[in-house]
Amino acid sequence: MAKKYKVTPWEVSGEIDYDRLIKEFGVKPLDEKILERMEKHTGELHYFLKRKIFFAHTYFDTVLDQAEKKNKFYLYTGRAPSGPVHLGHLVPWIFCKWLQDKFDVNLLFQIPDEEKFLFNENLTLEDTKKWAHENILDIIAVGFDPKKTRIFLDTEYAGVMYKHACRIAKKVTFSTAKSIFGFTDSNNLGEIFYTSMQSVPAFLPTILEGKTTYCLIPCAIDQQPHFFLTNDVAPKLGYPKTATILARFLPGLQGMHQEGKMSSSVESTTIFTTETPEQVRNKINKYAFSGGRETTEEHRKHGGNPDIDVSYQYLTYFLEDSAQLKKIYDDYKSGKMLTGELKQITIQVINKFLKEHQSRREKAKGMVEKFMMRG
Amino acid sequence: MAKKYKVTPWEVSGEIDYDRLIKEFGVKPLDEKILERMEKHTGELHYFLKRKIFFAHTYFDTVLDQAEKKNKFYLYTGRAPSGPVHLGHLVPWIFCKWLQDKFDVNLLFQIPDEEKFLFNENLTLEDTKKWAHENILDIIAVGFDPKKTRIFLDTEYAGVMYKHACRIAKKVTFSTAKSIFGFTDSNNLGEIFYTSMQSVPAFLPTILEGKTTYCLIPCAIDQQPHFFLTNDVAPKLGYPKTATILARFLPGLQGMHQEGKMSSSVESTTIFTTETPEQVRNKINKYAFSGGRETTEEHRKHGGNPDIDVSYQYLTYFLEDSAQLKKIYDDYKSGKMLTGELKQITIQVINKFLKEHQSRREKAKGMVEKFMMRG
Repeated sequence: MAKKYKVTPWEVSGEIDYDRLIKEFGVKPLDEKILERMEKHTGELHYFLKRKIFFAHTYFDTVLDQAEKKNKFYLYTGRAPSGPVHLGHLVPWIFCKWLQDKFDVNLLFQIPDEEKFLFNENLTLEDTKKWAHENILDIIAVGFDPKKTRIFLDTEYAGVMYKHACRIAKKVTFSTAKSIFGFTDSNNLGEIFYTSMQSVPAFLPTILEGKTTYCLIPCAIDQQPHFFLTNDVAPKLGYPKTATILARFLPGLQGMHQEGKMSSSVESTTIFTTETPEQVRNKINKYAFSGGRETTEEHRKHGGNPDIDVSYQYLTYFLEDSAQLKKIYDDYKSGKMLTGELKQITIQVINKFLKEHQSRREKAKGMVEKFMMRG
Repeated sequence: MAKKYKVTPWEVSGEIDYDRLIKEFGVKPLDEKILERMEKHTGELHYFLKRKIFFAHTYFDTVLDQAEKKNKFYLYTGRAPSGPVHLGHLVPWIFCKWLQDKFDVNLLFQIPDEEKFLFNENLTLEDTKKWAHENILDIIAVGFDPKKTRIFLDTEYAGVMYKHACRIAKKVTFSTAKSIFGFTDSNNLGEIFYTSMQSVPAFLPTILEGKTTYCLIPCAIDQQPHFFLTNDVAPKLGYPKTATILARFLPGLQGMHQEGKMSSSVESTTIFTTETPEQVRNKINKYAFSGGRETTEEHRKHGGNPDIDVSYQYLTYFLEDSAQLKKIYDDYKSGKMLTGELKQITIQVINKFLKEHQSRREKAKGMVEKFMMRG
């Protein structure tokens, strides 16, 4: 029986079948052939690619075409500021930084503070702005090049964006938006317009510099519907289609079968970037769904299941050493490694990662203005 | 049989029954009682009021309440820049200037350059911006006080406006917008959102100054649907309801039964503010619908009908001297005055008006920056 799940820009739930999602969304898998083409430029493949954490794309070949002609493209990604940043949010940003370094390209980082306000009854614009400023510290902590990165809040940059959003909005009927996003007559006017603002950065360098500039968007796959709309409009305005490179979601602590992704709104599913080593240890020990057996004896005898074990899954995202990862996989599967031991490794890996992130996040406080772009 | 007409912010057509429109729109007539209250503040009544050119209102009593408490309110009006300004456009602005002088109040003058772009397939944003700059000269020529008047283009002031438009948009469902404006699924996303931008200036001084400030909008009655929406939202955001004072339309040259109003898009119905005395003479002689009889003989015998004569109607808008106007009415009706004579008077009155307007319009070219407010 087909699993039930939902993936939209505003809701991700259920146990996601990514192979089916590729077909449903009409995106392409990141296959060997395109990864080989990419490796010619990057010299190596990020482990997110080898492990299929980034697993799908649209029009990525057109960006590689540009790279082969020595034409610069640029990156565009974003963060809707509705709460604190968690580990899952960092995944596309880490990959984005890697792309920035390897291709030596600019990055536009959108903070659509109005989006979460419009789609969430309980958030004010003051709330989303506050979270924006918190979240920007996490973004900068990822290590983007301040000379090549511009971060902007929609409400602050609207003086530039709004008129271009109108040019996009003019080309999209409510009927089209309904079919892409499932809107109804109960959606508010801001929700309906918002997608036009999310399309703007996909065209902005082409508009502002007056020459065609290709755009690559690294993001989680839930954002893809916006960029279907972007690409529906692009040829009507004489812009190139925008490319996306798409990540799966970091599972919540309760596991892939419980929650579609780690979610800021459910604290017990989530490890935030500002948590202490103690908090991380407690959360993983208490909540991380285990693929182990009921008893130590049974585990030693039959082995555990790393494929559903959340601690192991987190290692696939945060442990770079593939040989070590394989050994952990094999040892856990054979029963040689117990759940407690696996959790200790994951706690160490995540706490090491967070220690470094938090140190950079602290330094980021003095760097914000180097990154910001205002209207 | 009920006459057929249509009055929306984007279409005015047919022979308008203003008494019926008052009921349909749920607005109030400007009756003797409220005009008397007004006169206590203004000392006199503008002839637009005496002649019922401004004929209806919403919440105007709340503005007079404020005036009686010596609280300042402010004026807000606008001009959607889709082409050159004609005589009909000037009517609410002339009244607006009179209100500014009499009540000594500020005026926000919105130029929604994105509106006409969004609602008109053939206009680009460059077109509407070009017309905006042309139209601003006509606005300034009306004689507003540069110290008390701020003119802004939506696309230039969006850095301030957009976030407040989002706060308004969040409170309005598509369902509500459909019922107010008759939108369908074929409307584009920008058309759907736009009304939120038109509501912003009705709240902006309250927002920016942090204290409740009442707003009075002098405009033609086709704009009222936007302000129904504004007032639906106002209490939800803790703002006072906005007041409107509403004008009927200056008829096109072909008359009230042919066209709902003078229209920039049909040149033969229209006298533009930049036309020469010769052009005005030719247009009125050639096109102005006459209430006269077939032959001079019949006219002398039975008299003409000033109530449907366009030249006479224009005098009600542009000839301030009420005694002279009454004499013309009587003479035309009795047959003493012929259509040709009436037309000559109208040509003189309009050309005198335009000569002065054009002189101020020329001077306005050096004053634009004194009035403009940008993001």
